[in-house]
Amino acid sequence: MTMHFGEAQASRALPVSSRLESFLATNMFDQPTLVIDTDIVAQQFMALKAGLGEADIHYAVKANPTREVISRLVEVGSHFDAASRGEIELCLSLGARPETISFGNTVKRASDIAFAYRAGITLFAADAEEEIEKIAHNAPGAQVYIRIIVETSEADWPLSRKFGCDRDTAIALMGHAKMLGLDPVGLSFHVGSQTRRSEMWAPTLDAMATIWHDAIALGHDLRLLNIGGGFPAFYGEAIEAPTAYAAGVMRQVRERFGDVERVMAEPGRGLVAEAGVLACEVMLVSRKSARDAHRWVYLDIGKFSGLAETIDEAIRYQFETPRDGDPEGPCILAGPSCDSADVLYEKRPVHLPMTLAAGDRVLIRNTGAYTSSYSSVGFNGFPPLAVVAI
Amino acid sequence: MTMHFGEAQASRALPVSSRLESFLATNMFDQPTLVIDTDIVAQQFMALKAGLGEADIHYAVKANPTREVISRLVEVGSHFDAASRGEIELCLSLGARPETISFGNTVKRASDIAFAYRAGITLFAADAEEEIEKIAHNAPGAQVYIRIIVETSEADWPLSRKFGCDRDTAIALMGHAKMLGLDPVGLSFHVGSQTRRSEMWAPTLDAMATIWHDAIALGHDLRLLNIGGGFPAFYGEAIEAPTAYAAGVMRQVRERFGDVERVMAEPGRGLVAEAGVLACEVMLVSRKSARDAHRWVYLDIGKFSGLAETIDEAIRYQFETPRDGDPEGPCILAGPSCDSADVLYEKRPVHLPMTLAAGDRVLIRNTGAYTSSYSSVGFNGFPPLAVVAI
Repeated sequence: MTMHFGEAQASRALPVSSRLESFLATNMFDQPTLVIDTDIVAQQFMALKAGLGEADIHYAVKANPTREVISRLVEVGSHFDAASRGEIELCLSLGARPETISFGNTVKRASDIAFAYRAGITLFAADAEEEIEKIAHNAPGAQVYIRIIVETSEADWPLSRKFGCDRDTAIALMGHAKMLGLDPVGLSFHVGSQTRRSEMWAPTLDAMATIWHDAIALGHDLRLLNIGGGFPAFYGEAIEAPTAYAAGVMRQVRERFGDVERVMAEPGRGLVAEAGVLACEVMLVSRKSARDAHRWVYLDIGKFSGLAETIDEAIRYQFETPRDGDPEGPCILAGPSCDSADVLYEKRPVHLPMTLAAGDRVLIRNTGAYTSSYSSVGFNGFPPLAVVAI
Repeated sequence: MTMHFGEAQASRALPVSSRLESFLATNMFDQPTLVIDTDIVAQQFMALKAGLGEADIHYAVKANPTREVISRLVEVGSHFDAASRGEIELCLSLGARPETISFGNTVKRASDIAFAYRAGITLFAADAEEEIEKIAHNAPGAQVYIRIIVETSEADWPLSRKFGCDRDTAIALMGHAKMLGLDPVGLSFHVGSQTRRSEMWAPTLDAMATIWHDAIALGHDLRLLNIGGGFPAFYGEAIEAPTAYAAGVMRQVRERFGDVERVMAEPGRGLVAEAGVLACEVMLVSRKSARDAHRWVYLDIGKFSGLAETIDEAIRYQFETPRDGDPEGPCILAGPSCDSADVLYEKRPVHLPMTLAAGDRVLIRNTGAYTSSYSSVGFNGFPPLAVVAI
């Protein structure tokens, strides 16, 4: 099989795991299956940690909540960023200590805050007055960090305005939190998903540092900076290797924020994406008309069974087939459901071998993040994406 | 509670079920829950059937595969359109006879075709040579209908080019099917989801009739016309009532196709959407900045837990709250996950009461179709959408 990886991958610290390759070569699956190599997860954790230094890694559980992934990260000393009660329960059940878990969703059910507090979790995110009130009521005295909205993203996938608030609101919220007996301990932000090089963090860090120093000047005792995620995975375009990337981010953080008592980072994609390979199958190759230049290739996995990040063709996965090396042509790639929106890549077709046919196996590389948990319960009667951890 | 239904709803044959209203009034749920009234499903089936006359209704199982919905439709004499082996197994397990099930996905796994054939299913869809070959090999002698691509949709949600082929390809496929021992029995098409009035079918029916008569003139013995779905549900804009709509479609079909031996229709949304109400909860109401004119309202259900049809703000649901009647203001509506793409309505904000607050119940009307089965297995640790059939 031809590897579609270019030099960016070759420059990465981590070689493609021969364990993963040999598992894929010797196992066939009767439904789309994500194979995730927990050794790669552990290696990637170490590579990021080497660059992040004293900063704590809080793995963003939502990226891949597979139990073996969480267990392995508990073993190597990771902390966790949980989006819900379900994720908190998962981490606790696998041995994570509550003081290593932050409840990072700015939108929390009141009863889930109370649950987390009873479980020993003391660090919560907020970006709104009503949320501060819920936290004060259900987790009295807890630490809160205020999420700031980022308007300066250079990410491949900039975030919407869904999370965060502006400077003035943030400073008002700190005062409100203090008044309600909470400890407004710091700030968080998110530079945008898949920010490919560390220097792209500069404009966001500039904006955040201004707010940080303003808040301190106004008397707030900030000791926690949560730099969020944005750590990239390889999807075909060059990215900076993880240790250099993390070190580059931390250097810029220190330049602007000085010695912060506690820095936390929340890699998700950057920790687990490259640890996963999705094995699937071609269902059909067709042309709508004899005049069409491109073929339609239908896989047995689509937007509703794991590849949700192809929405707007945002994330471009790398495909590998047993026919690689044969002449190629442009293909529109689609999923197996009877849903006309279940098209993966159409605006920018994917080049695949002309010889590709129904029944061929397709490997989709670097699919360890934001795949299995997005999968629908059974849209069109297809089972959810299977996951095998090795 | 104020009902947001306008006169379109008032002109519908079906009154809002008092059984559904009283169930909602007397039951609270601790997670987002779809309540579906199988009486309304049965009534809607009868209303469509009254207009469709001799045509068979093949319910598009993907719209809502809840067991109680399928059972009720088996009882009232519905046929079924299945997208996968899973949906076929579901229908068979609930008493549907195999000769009432068509395998309507044009993209089928070879082993699933063989399974269906062994189970007694003899009617398959195709739009490509490779699919015809799979069917000939795995379901020898079966009936196939060729799906034609529609370029003339007037639907609220026109379909992509994912399904169907053009006239010349279709006619070539019929010849190919015959050569391989299959029975190319007819044509299918899909006018586009949520086509609100029957007269909007005219341009598509014109185009299909041309191909139909051409194929007959070329010696193909066409006896089956599958008019697909497109039957609308009420989402705030006026729609034609079901019996008049179905009769209007059939009148136009007869004008163009004459007396076809067998006509089948595949309503999904049009059968079940109005039978469902989704009960959910406000998690947070906030403003990003004191200068923002709109509020952000976060619900405990979002794009990845059942409201996938809000992608591109395509389907606009109707919301009902206990504070309806209070002064309203524009809101951006978002889901509970830590995913910045999990925003329901932003380009066209939703007007909701200014008094709305965390903990308030929200009912989302006419959500019986394309909700529960789209729900993710557990994105962000949130459980899949619960379903209660009454």
